[in-house]
Amino acid sequence: MAFPLLVDCDTGIDDALALAYLACRQDVDVVGLVSSGGNVPAATVHRNNLALTGMLGLDAPVALGADRPLVEPPIFADDTHGPHGLGHAQVPAPARDEDPRSGAQLWVDLARERPGELVGLVLGPHTNLALALEIEPELPRLLRRLHVMGGAIHHRGNTGPTSEWNIAVDPEAAQQVLASFSAAPRRPVLGALQATEAIVFRAPELDRLEHLARRSVHPVARILADAVRFYFEFHEADGFGWTAHVHDPLVTAHAVTGDFAGTRPLAVDVELAGTLTRGQTVGDELGRWGREPNVDLLTEVAAEEFVEHLLATFEAGLD
Amino acid sequence: MAFPLLVDCDTGIDDALALAYLACRQDVDVVGLVSSGGNVPAATVHRNNLALTGMLGLDAPVALGADRPLVEPPIFADDTHGPHGLGHAQVPAPARDEDPRSGAQLWVDLARERPGELVGLVLGPHTNLALALEIEPELPRLLRRLHVMGGAIHHRGNTGPTSEWNIAVDPEAAQQVLASFSAAPRRPVLGALQATEAIVFRAPELDRLEHLARRSVHPVARILADAVRFYFEFHEADGFGWTAHVHDPLVTAHAVTGDFAGTRPLAVDVELAGTLTRGQTVGDELGRWGREPNVDLLTEVAAEEFVEHLLATFEAGLD
Repeated sequence: MAFPLLVDCDTGIDDALALAYLACRQDVDVVGLVSSGGNVPAATVHRNNLALTGMLGLDAPVALGADRPLVEPPIFADDTHGPHGLGHAQVPAPARDEDPRSGAQLWVDLARERPGELVGLVLGPHTNLALALEIEPELPRLLRRLHVMGGAIHHRGNTGPTSEWNIAVDPEAAQQVLASFSAAPRRPVLGALQATEAIVFRAPELDRLEHLARRSVHPVARILADAVRFYFEFHEADGFGWTAHVHDPLVTAHAVTGDFAGTRPLAVDVELAGTLTRGQTVGDELGRWGREPNVDLLTEVAAEEFVEHLLATFEAGLD
Repeated sequence: MAFPLLVDCDTGIDDALALAYLACRQDVDVVGLVSSGGNVPAATVHRNNLALTGMLGLDAPVALGADRPLVEPPIFADDTHGPHGLGHAQVPAPARDEDPRSGAQLWVDLARERPGELVGLVLGPHTNLALALEIEPELPRLLRRLHVMGGAIHHRGNTGPTSEWNIAVDPEAAQQVLASFSAAPRRPVLGALQATEAIVFRAPELDRLEHLARRSVHPVARILADAVRFYFEFHEADGFGWTAHVHDPLVTAHAVTGDFAGTRPLAVDVELAGTLTRGQTVGDELGRWGREPNVDLLTEVAAEEFVEHLLATFEAGLD
């Protein structure tokens, strides 16, 4: 009984790992992708998504998202993901067509077609989901649930000193999504940096991806290895050593399986005004705001177990 | 070879523990106290400081600090420290006179009298030190070094969701002190919540204080036990259980001995503009600002060892 999933992502090295993971799973049906600006420009993300979904046999519509955040000019992370978004890998020209709708419209259409069934997964900035909420304010009640990779709660940021990339790119969008989804029947599940940074690839994991790339005929196996090698080089340059934090796959796998992490309810909001802290997610652990919890925060990550699961899924599915 | 110390504090339960600790030590010479508004109004703090120093045999001048922060109206923490600042304890009417100077002037005068020798210890808001810097901009170079209890770096706040009390009361003052002391020969030592919350009193520690109060003739022994019992009641009401975080003594003991914690350099600044994060201390772990480290942050706290040291010091000195 595969469930329908819409993925909104800014592919992106770890986004590519997440898409490959989804393609390898039988228990989820990817029914749509939205190409979000973020790690690289939306048009580059779109090309990556069209090419990867083609190679991965995911035939869901892929719609282009907005080319800029709601308020600020776009920023990109070429240093983290390479100029094409996939590190040392480059995808071939896509063999399939884009969906003509906007990313926001795809959110709305897919949710309306399956009221109460569609699961949303945001692995990039929240721009397109915020725009979708302008078209269809009932979206939080039309979705079955929402999973988000984003934010850092009482944790060093990876963009500003306390801000995480997906939120920092478009803080207004993230704030609007959190506010709107406080009316959802189920709290969004938020995978923030303190959870996703528990997922660390080191030399043995890169070796396994390289080994898979050498023995597999699946073109995506080579792309993942070349992409992740670049990710290691970036993390080394940023002071973390020969390693990579692999954010999106954990949130994705938790959305599919419910495994590999627990959750705890928390009231979370986004700082929009700070000089030093704009784009920071703030969690109110002690109830100072007097608000109900509005997210389920990923916690207690089974990191080793998940890394093994992820690589084994690739080895079985991209063979 | 006792070194000269000026203490600027908002006594306050944990401030009282710090003052009692200092009075019990032979290796430090308290040469001045500044009564800072904070936990309770400055006038109430002043009364506590005059009475406690009298009972503790500390004959240093005690000067009244400003009655409000630099910009915002004052806030107080009656819930945490009780209306008189010492929980269930009340001090007798002070038997000694205040120093006629302002708190800011006392900072300046004592530093000028001992250029390069005076150590400063701020256990409350930074208001008076910021005012002293207006009188004497050379203060960072006149002091031997500065130790501060304040802030929370990537850690739940105890005032706002991400802000710590001493900084949240007067963020502008804290920001100005940090900026001015970037010109100091030695970086200020910052004991933030993630270090000081490691110092936890539980039932056995309260029992030891109660036992000391019963057997000792020293009036401060009873005051500490009655104050700390209130502190336990507050922490229980705030969701932490029958326990108390004892912030100021760790920073104080580290300033005196150099023991019980390590330090690591970090660039830290104070958010003044945030809607959710005003008063938050932000630490730039990954060098995003391109600034030199401006504090030595307390880390690697030897919590059990310190708690034993603190209680043993009271048992030996307040007997």
